[in-house]
Amino acid sequence: MATVVMKFGGTSVGDTDKIVNIAKRIKEKKNHGDNIVVVVSAMGKTTNNLIELSKEITDKPDKRDLDMLMATGEQISISLMSMALKQLGLDSISLTGIQAGIVTTNDHTRAKINNINPENIVNHLDEDKVVVIAGFQGGSDDGSITTLGRGGSDTSAVALAASLGGSCEIYTDVNGIYGVDPRIVPSAKKLDYISYDEMMELASRGARVMETRAVELGQKYNVEILVANSHNTEAGTIIKEMEDNMETRVITGVTTLKDCLMVSVRNLPFEASHVADLFNQLSVRKISIDMISQTAPHNNLVDVSFTTTKEYTEDIIDLLENLKQELGNIEFYLNPNLAKLSVVGIGMISQHGVASDIFELLSTNGIVYYQVTTSEISISYTIKEQDVAKATKILAEHFEL
Amino acid sequence: MATVVMKFGGTSVGDTDKIVNIAKRIKEKKNHGDNIVVVVSAMGKTTNNLIELSKEITDKPDKRDLDMLMATGEQISISLMSMALKQLGLDSISLTGIQAGIVTTNDHTRAKINNINPENIVNHLDEDKVVVIAGFQGGSDDGSITTLGRGGSDTSAVALAASLGGSCEIYTDVNGIYGVDPRIVPSAKKLDYISYDEMMELASRGARVMETRAVELGQKYNVEILVANSHNTEAGTIIKEMEDNMETRVITGVTTLKDCLMVSVRNLPFEASHVADLFNQLSVRKISIDMISQTAPHNNLVDVSFTTTKEYTEDIIDLLENLKQELGNIEFYLNPNLAKLSVVGIGMISQHGVASDIFELLSTNGIVYYQVTTSEISISYTIKEQDVAKATKILAEHFEL
Repeated sequence: MATVVMKFGGTSVGDTDKIVNIAKRIKEKKNHGDNIVVVVSAMGKTTNNLIELSKEITDKPDKRDLDMLMATGEQISISLMSMALKQLGLDSISLTGIQAGIVTTNDHTRAKINNINPENIVNHLDEDKVVVIAGFQGGSDDGSITTLGRGGSDTSAVALAASLGGSCEIYTDVNGIYGVDPRIVPSAKKLDYISYDEMMELASRGARVMETRAVELGQKYNVEILVANSHNTEAGTIIKEMEDNMETRVITGVTTLKDCLMVSVRNLPFEASHVADLFNQLSVRKISIDMISQTAPHNNLVDVSFTTTKEYTEDIIDLLENLKQELGNIEFYLNPNLAKLSVVGIGMISQHGVASDIFELLSTNGIVYYQVTTSEISISYTIKEQDVAKATKILAEHFEL
Repeated sequence: MATVVMKFGGTSVGDTDKIVNIAKRIKEKKNHGDNIVVVVSAMGKTTNNLIELSKEITDKPDKRDLDMLMATGEQISISLMSMALKQLGLDSISLTGIQAGIVTTNDHTRAKINNINPENIVNHLDEDKVVVIAGFQGGSDDGSITTLGRGGSDTSAVALAASLGGSCEIYTDVNGIYGVDPRIVPSAKKLDYISYDEMMELASRGARVMETRAVELGQKYNVEILVANSHNTEAGTIIKEMEDNMETRVITGVTTLKDCLMVSVRNLPFEASHVADLFNQLSVRKISIDMISQTAPHNNLVDVSFTTTKEYTEDIIDLLENLKQELGNIEFYLNPNLAKLSVVGIGMISQHGVASDIFELLSTNGIVYYQVTTSEISISYTIKEQDVAKATKILAEHFEL
């Protein structure tokens, strides 16, 4: 008998009516004869409300206490979901992360799953129960409750599917994965399939349907992941291992990440330690940087540019002012209102000329780009925020997304 | 080093400001050098709100699911309390019932504590931490979360004190135990001490400060229990083992329970099975009955009276109508608007004439009573609800309560 892990996010279980609707959907699935494991997130804004409550007491809550607090959100969801399933005549059992055997590191608020001991789940499945498990949480070796951080519930679902040798279905509020944002290109086509690599590129470059982390885990354990809409029965998108010649399509998607800030530092003395020192200081201040480019040395000086997000603006100015005091003749420029445009496609590995096609498309249409980086299956540009819609439409049309 | 278990109820931790205030109080205590274990209930109306949520899904929630749901209330309290203690510079750890080693029966929603494995608590106390434990909950042998039902948090606190060889302090919203309700007799004196037996009699007869169950556990393990006000520093009342000659007082308290219903059934055929059958049917319908009286048989017929509470009125009428159909000539009368008045005192064991004093006081003052029952240290009367205040005042004055 196949085992299916169905995961429902916070908006899908936002109130008790929605929980009852999801329960009906689970019942339909169960009637097909599969073993069903359900993973749920906290209802709607519950987690945020709990965090607000903690802020009334302290700005810096102890992370173990915060996990203890946040974990109640999913615990409420599983108990109500289990009640709703029983109300429909199904047998069910609700399990916290610890009860489900999810063992994590003790890195509170961003724990990693070490392993899953599925005996308890399997015993309940053998008794033909729907097993309802709290997403986003687990327990460390000392029995403390931990939470998994961003994308935690998706990660729980994929890890459980891997552990149970089953498939995973992520129910969300979109119909699946699109190569291009339907809000920008209304004719955008939903993808039937996408490879793990492509999905990770899309996710890490701004497509918010699933977190990279869960997709990575799916790839590692070869878990097929369906992304579908919890509100309708559209077919959704399946994320799975694909050969680059499995489909003829070259480009899978175009994503954009707004609010980028490009920082250019000119006339840095060309000694490795100065460039390294700059990036070290950025790291110490926990400033995430993305694309980096550096010119060849000229008169023993180099220019360095990097992109980051606007939130770090003040911190970066402070850092560079200090550096200017120290090194004298450097100059720096901040270029806000930029966006990162990424074109992703597994076909880029085998098909040549894709990159030059894109370069030409952008130039012909007067879209200026400031930086370019490439990976095996993607190419990313820093462009003006105002050009995002235009660029996306041109690319979508050209590559028939 | 002495270990003190401090328990705070739902109103004492009703919001984050109150939690911070309680944390300050705990800090003062901790500064005296004791080992501190804190037991907290769910904040204010949290438990009721969670139950309401479940009712939106089903009228008959599965009890294991309901425990899973309700247990989140205390889990929220312990995490916030632990944050508040750390904010004041104390080291602390929050523990769920299971993490604290509280092992219960699997009788969900009304589990009993089987035993406590205090190793985890002791280890944290040894590291000089304040250990904050979720009241009202524990775990059964299969790792399921259970709740202890009515008076659960008091029971958790007393059981933990017993297990740790410490004393117990129950913080509530009254200054301690009064022999008579201060709302009826404003000059009522707070008791400095009370025996477990007297406290149980008072509690089971309507004094709502503590549940009988927790007091009984305190007696079994000889745990001294202080009942005090969480909002002020009044001395409170200590519940402990007392010899009946330890104090000269004869009567400790007078309590009343309103909303009593007296049911009289006349002309029941005097065959054991009919009377037994009546009480069996009451039991099947889960109607709690209190005092029972029966006349001597006359013409092979007996009259039976019993008291219960008004909530069962309809059910009782239905039951007795059926019985009338079956047995023909029985008659029944319902007498609502009655109250149960109980006079409690350990001195009644050794001092004779107390009962007759009370009978005389009631008669002289024109207070009619319908039924009388006695235990070793108490005597209870069914009286008219309208006579409650008068009777209480007369007895309080006579026995100088």
